[in-house]
Amino acid sequence: MTLITIEQVNELTRERLPFTKPYAFNVLQLKHGEAKVAMPANEEILRPGGTIAGPAMMALADYAIYVAVMSAIGPVEMAVTTNLNVNFLHRPPPGELVAWAKLLKLGKRLAIASVDITARNEDSLVAHATGTYSIPPTREIQSNG
Amino acid sequence: MTLITIEQVNELTRERLPFTKPYAFNVLQLKHGEAKVAMPANEEILRPGGTIAGPAMMALADYAIYVAVMSAIGPVEMAVTTNLNVNFLHRPPPGELVAWAKLLKLGKRLAIASVDITARNEDSLVAHATGTYSIPPTREIQSNG
Amino acid sequence: MTLITIEQVNELTRERLPFTKPYAFNVLQLKHGEAKVAMPANEEILRPGGTIAGPAMMALADYAIYVAVMSAIGPVEMAVTTNLNVNFLHRPPPGELVAWAKLLKLGKRLAIASVDITARNEDSLVAHATGTYSIPPTREIQSNG
Amino acid sequence: MTLITIEQVNELTRERLPFTKPYAFNVLQLKHGEAKVAMPANEEILRPGGTIAGPAMMALADYAIYVAVMSAIGPVEMAVTTNLNVNFLHRPPPGELVAWAKLLKLGKRLAIASVDITARNEDSLVAHATGTYSIPPTREIQSNG
Repeated sequence: MTLITIEQVNELTRERLPFTKPYAFNVLQLKHGEAKVAMPANEEILRPGGTIAGPAMMALADYAIYVAVMSAIGPVEMAVTTNLNVNFLHRPPPGELVAWAKLLKLGKRLAIASVDITARNEDSLVAHATGTYSIPPTREIQSNG
Repeated sequence: MTLITIEQVNELTRERLPFTKPYAFNVLQLKHGEAKVAMPANEEILRPGGTIAGPAMMALADYAIYVAVMSAIGPVEMAVTTNLNVNFLHRPPPGELVAWAKLLKLGKRLAIASVDITARNEDSLVAHATGTYSIPPTREIQSNG
Repeated sequence: MTLITIEQVNELTRERLPFTKPYAFNVLQLKHGEAKVAMPANEEILRPGGTIAGPAMMALADYAIYVAVMSAIGPVEMAVTTNLNVNFLHRPPPGELVAWAKLLKLGKRLAIASVDITARNEDSLVAHATGTYSIPPTREIQSNG
Repeated sequence: MTLITIEQVNELTRERLPFTKPYAFNVLQLKHGEAKVAMPANEEILRPGGTIAGPAMMALADYAIYVAVMSAIGPVEMAVTTNLNVNFLHRPPPGELVAWAKLLKLGKRLAIASVDITARNEDSLVAHATGTYSIPPTREIQSNG
């Protein structure tokens, strides 16, 4: 069972992560330790030639991991990325992308996740990422937030 | 000697990389295989609590590598990132950041670079990245562009 | 269909990769773009306290990717790793480990793979890796080998 | 000032890290947060064609980071690698390699380092790595060891 609802994620994102606004992330699905997040194509993230800018995919991967972490430990504002490694596999078409983040490990101090990014409704990967989040020691308190 | 001028980088960025606009990247210095790029703090990349959003730092690292690649091979529109690995070290203060990208290898097909990111006028690192760019086979032609 | 047999992998490994001998790698299964490789525990790779040394897991991941690449393009001696990123998740017990490598991308110049490492007959991951191999331009000739 | 001597590193390596024996690592220099480690060429790590096997370089990078961590926090047996990312740049000649590890961050829970690997007495890089170690919470006690 997820420890945060899509509504809670949306609210926390709106209030605490204003820099994600241009990406218009849309949480599609939440399970314990898993999150599926869509990113619509829009002018701000398109490259000429009709593909999605790499940094937008990195932002998507990072956000999807963050949501997956919260699905497993509850709302935690202060979790921070310590490492993100992204392999770009194929140029995506200029449409919506979907990231599927899964926790590979949830420790007391670190959460490690993998992320598969595909074009929506397609199977073939456009990018694969792994990321590490540092979990604040006081998360029990914060997760009441 | 750099094979691209700051003016050329700025023009190419404006015309071909419109998604970088919110970051207002500012190339400070260019040498053959090296680029120093500043990113001013602004509303769009700040996190509440007063630090810079991780994805903005990833975008900065990626862009600085791209500029360093062009300093060594000339203007190349189609070079693409194949891998980016970022370690976030310290939360930066909410001010300007500077990325210093250096090519570690420039092969016919791959360029690999490291990037140090610091707060402006400070020495201590806020992030360290390494990235790989795939260089198009026809770059000789394109580099006349 | 795999383009190399387990026997061919074993022979090539014995002849061309003598440094892998201490690991006693054992290819369990091959499909096109996928390889399952076991590494038995032995004195040479154990750490006191009863766990497997990290570098042995890195060697296993690297080898499994190499075999997966050959399953898709045939025997290629000169393919070389350009990047390997490993996340260590849990200390493995002091027994046999199994790596399952899958190509995420097979381009003309680069192959990118992910690797899941588990203890044999267990599901939970002990490590996750991604790796990039550079494929030699003359592979058509070599793959006759 | 380093918090561990070369003699202490050698003793700890011999007693606690027997799997490193084939590599014959040789600590050349120690400063607070920095370590220079040599790895002689030998039959066990050579590839046919006369280059050093990638996994041996990964083992060298990992070990050099471990020594750099101990130079800054004292002898700590239980520090473990959580992430290692290696970029292979040029095929090294079949001779001695030197790794120079420097801590980029030393936190309470994580140490992050970069490693430059060159052929001995040469400047050009053969590999660049970054690694993360998790530092045990009880290190104050262990560092008396």
